[in-house]
Amino acid sequence: MLPVDLPDTVREALLAPLVDHHCNGVRRDELSRSRFELLIGDGGGPAPPGTTHFDTPFGVAVRRWCAPVLGLAPHVTPSVYLSRRAELGPGEVNRRLLRAAGVAAFLVDTGVESGELLSAAEMGRHADAAADEIVRIEQIEHDVAEMARIAVDYMDSLAEELVARAARAVGMNTVIAHRCGLDFDPSRPSRGSVIAAANRRLSDPKERLTDPVLLRHLLWTAVDVARERGLPLQFHTGAGEADVELHRADPARMTGFIKALQPIGVPVVLLHCYPFHRQAAYLAATFPHVYVDVGLALARTAAGAARVMEEVLELAPFHKQLFGSDCSGMAESCHLAAVYFRRSLAAALKPRLDADEWTAADAARVAHMVGSGNARRIYRL
Amino acid sequence: MLPVDLPDTVREALLAPLVDHHCNGVRRDELSRSRFELLIGDGGGPAPPGTTHFDTPFGVAVRRWCAPVLGLAPHVTPSVYLSRRAELGPGEVNRRLLRAAGVAAFLVDTGVESGELLSAAEMGRHADAAADEIVRIEQIEHDVAEMARIAVDYMDSLAEELVARAARAVGMNTVIAHRCGLDFDPSRPSRGSVIAAANRRLSDPKERLTDPVLLRHLLWTAVDVARERGLPLQFHTGAGEADVELHRADPARMTGFIKALQPIGVPVVLLHCYPFHRQAAYLAATFPHVYVDVGLALARTAAGAARVMEEVLELAPFHKQLFGSDCSGMAESCHLAAVYFRRSLAAALKPRLDADEWTAADAARVAHMVGSGNARRIYRL
Amino acid sequence: MLPVDLPDTVREALLAPLVDHHCNGVRRDELSRSRFELLIGDGGGPAPPGTTHFDTPFGVAVRRWCAPVLGLAPHVTPSVYLSRRAELGPGEVNRRLLRAAGVAAFLVDTGVESGELLSAAEMGRHADAAADEIVRIEQIEHDVAEMARIAVDYMDSLAEELVARAARAVGMNTVIAHRCGLDFDPSRPSRGSVIAAANRRLSDPKERLTDPVLLRHLLWTAVDVARERGLPLQFHTGAGEADVELHRADPARMTGFIKALQPIGVPVVLLHCYPFHRQAAYLAATFPHVYVDVGLALARTAAGAARVMEEVLELAPFHKQLFGSDCSGMAESCHLAAVYFRRSLAAALKPRLDADEWTAADAARVAHMVGSGNARRIYRL
Repeated sequence: MLPVDLPDTVREALLAPLVDHHCNGVRRDELSRSRFELLIGDGGGPAPPGTTHFDTPFGVAVRRWCAPVLGLAPHVTPSVYLSRRAELGPGEVNRRLLRAAGVAAFLVDTGVESGELLSAAEMGRHADAAADEIVRIEQIEHDVAEMARIAVDYMDSLAEELVARAARAVGMNTVIAHRCGLDFDPSRPSRGSVIAAANRRLSDPKERLTDPVLLRHLLWTAVDVARERGLPLQFHTGAGEADVELHRADPARMTGFIKALQPIGVPVVLLHCYPFHRQAAYLAATFPHVYVDVGLALARTAAGAARVMEEVLELAPFHKQLFGSDCSGMAESCHLAAVYFRRSLAAALKPRLDADEWTAADAARVAHMVGSGNARRIYRL
Repeated sequence: MLPVDLPDTVREALLAPLVDHHCNGVRRDELSRSRFELLIGDGGGPAPPGTTHFDTPFGVAVRRWCAPVLGLAPHVTPSVYLSRRAELGPGEVNRRLLRAAGVAAFLVDTGVESGELLSAAEMGRHADAAADEIVRIEQIEHDVAEMARIAVDYMDSLAEELVARAARAVGMNTVIAHRCGLDFDPSRPSRGSVIAAANRRLSDPKERLTDPVLLRHLLWTAVDVARERGLPLQFHTGAGEADVELHRADPARMTGFIKALQPIGVPVVLLHCYPFHRQAAYLAATFPHVYVDVGLALARTAAGAARVMEEVLELAPFHKQLFGSDCSGMAESCHLAAVYFRRSLAAALKPRLDADEWTAADAARVAHMVGSGNARRIYRL
Repeated sequence: MLPVDLPDTVREALLAPLVDHHCNGVRRDELSRSRFELLIGDGGGPAPPGTTHFDTPFGVAVRRWCAPVLGLAPHVTPSVYLSRRAELGPGEVNRRLLRAAGVAAFLVDTGVESGELLSAAEMGRHADAAADEIVRIEQIEHDVAEMARIAVDYMDSLAEELVARAARAVGMNTVIAHRCGLDFDPSRPSRGSVIAAANRRLSDPKERLTDPVLLRHLLWTAVDVARERGLPLQFHTGAGEADVELHRADPARMTGFIKALQPIGVPVVLLHCYPFHRQAAYLAATFPHVYVDVGLALARTAAGAARVMEEVLELAPFHKQLFGSDCSGMAESCHLAAVYFRRSLAAALKPRLDADEWTAADAARVAHMVGSGNARRIYRL
């Protein structure tokens, strides 16, 4: 699976089980061609007439690397692939692909609750791996907003629910980048402003929360909980959703907030980051409590992933980088994330070894830290 | 001309005639050394004393790849090159270089009207290729502003002239990025605000239009015409002109406008994009009506073009990327754009084939789509 | 030391003595492990518990490339390296590493005055090289603010002190990016606004100057002096300090100011630039008075430096790029900057020669220009 020859110790470190510190549940049901197309596209919609999302880096990678896991030759056509997928059934497909990823532990973002998705525990069972939960704070807010009647209840319930949900989680997670951008005011909002905003909110609680005051209140309440329980706080950044202008998801825009968290000691984990992964690596190098992962980008850029990995390695301290698949919807995304994580890291290590820049021991140590060691330390697994 | 060995089918697809979906006319007159220097520099001005614009990636590439087309050895000195150019005369030079580019059809941006530049039809004749027109909406506005007396005339004439000019074009084109930045208000301006702005405008109609209200009015009027006629709308983005701060030409800044166009169905084609080509590729991957081309950047980065191509290929769907030379002023820019398009795409395909990431059929199909197929489909050639 | 085979002329040009147009003094005292760790980290603080700043690209490079200069095998452990460092003593360590860098002349930024750091003259003596001074204008302002009593004195003294300090310098230097961001108002502030701001400033003169009005006044006063004396003005841009949000240190944000300086003719030298080095190269290509250097980034990205160098070479005219080590604190940073400048430029030239894109004469000329020729011309050494 590795694209280059490497010393045995490095090879073993790269092929060792990973900790996937950020993934989502995959669907439990059978996926039609049109449904599968929607899931492999980036925008959530169908490809333009006469085209197919299989004509993307990710789509080609599905045919290349997932087909053999389902017992097919590499590079089969989309229709052969999907027929075989239907033949095996979703349970078997999920089991095969999740196991092929070689993951020892999944930290599952349960932010998108849906009966169609495998729960954290089911993800673990299918993959024969450990599984823990990362709670998404905007999901908790959504639940609270639907129940609360008055602003004070809303605030109390929010704090209580965050405590309760965090009690069974190993980390917390926010999508504030997609709701109002990362250039939010880093200060904790005043109680008065929160009450006013909550009253507006409760008049239409089914809406997605986009009010910056309430998002900041939610975030700071989560920070209190995270500090109390020693939990890292994950931030979606960079590409991922079309809800916000991409440049406003540049993690450098939250430098003020990162500085505000530094004395508090809550680890800040920057997810995805692409195409701002150099900015994210810089933040990880500059602030002791910041961590970085380019999860989503490696599977999506697929055959082009090596350059993304190289660019993170330019500045990120080796004890600050993590593996996350951001797998979502279909188990293919988990397997491909693991494939391209290992392949791109191998491709980055190879010239360092060939040029005698690093020793094999250096390379093996880095592969181990990034693949699992850092996550075990930070999330206290 | 290709820098790597490739299977025959891939090689043939790369060397097949291109559709150049965005170029400008080249000059019909003989170019003195000082004039030629101005054209090969990026800023439009002379190089500092004691230096030459030949000491740039583009300048070295002229000596390397254009000299042989004029019957010289590769790498001749600038003065030998320019002597030979003068000896052959501009007609012969233009014919040789435009034909060497291997382009089957030019879509010519006629936004800079000047008797010194070849028209679209002349470009076609010189290159022995088809030629169609892309109209630049700011040029049309300029013509209308000079004729109109009152705001209502201005608005009526603008709409009529856009319809008339679009009737003989295959697409439209805007330089709003260079006039007010891409972070413009995406909404259609009110009639009242347009009338007020038009009255100001008509008091000084010879000025370049920079008023955001009128630029937005112009753009939305063009959108109406483009929808009516099924025409794509090209946006200059990224590097290209010094008129605006570069970061404000990041296409991600126009996400709101892109979303506003999505239900309307007008294709949005992002031109140049460098150094925001990853952002552009992301937009093309996310929105079904967005397309991407890094035209200008490949010729300008020359021997460094492979990395730019690789970065676009990280996310851009294969059915969304286009070839455009952005050739401008001298025919060398057309030939070099074609040379570096083919070389950089070859350099990107080679490791994908060697690593068995893609099949030769995949590579050939992608080369065909990006080189001509996508443009033929989108512009209905 | 070069990672690739190159023609002799190219090799010689790469190994020829450099002009380091931007460095800082290194410490004269012995460095404990904890002190050394602080210096090799990017953020100025210790690594998180259980980790070490040696687990960074820069840290690995110290073990690889500096150990042999101290008479050790490559890749020794941190503790062996630091023991040897202590054994040799700081004078010998500084002499060895500064000389190993192969620098003929240092231009030393004396902005951080401290008895712990070698002066410009001492840097020269230790390295057996020439040494000149670059004055940091914010440091001069700091001295003036502490002495002045009233606003008019402050303004007069500032102008006088800038003239006096510039008289013995070869250039000036500003950190306005770290004080208020590069998106400052490019116009010269009014005298009234400066007097008002100066009065506020003088009530607390020991504070770091962050007032944009006074920073702009300082900058424009420095521009007057620079024009008078023909001195370049260096701008810190991009990564470097955590004081400002990184995206606000994008040099493209100061396009308005760059344009304002164009008729004045003061050279603008963009330092560091990472991760905005493509933007910086674009500015250098577009404006005749703009220069670019990625000093800091090459040593910090270490084994990954080749890609950064390649990206600058995509657009930067060869007569516009400079070598600067940004060495700071420990002499290792000077040696590593020189090592990775030479290695990354070699790695960029090699494929251009192999593909017959450039001639050996082109490559040697570019290596000479970037390594020393451009700096000698611009700073009139």
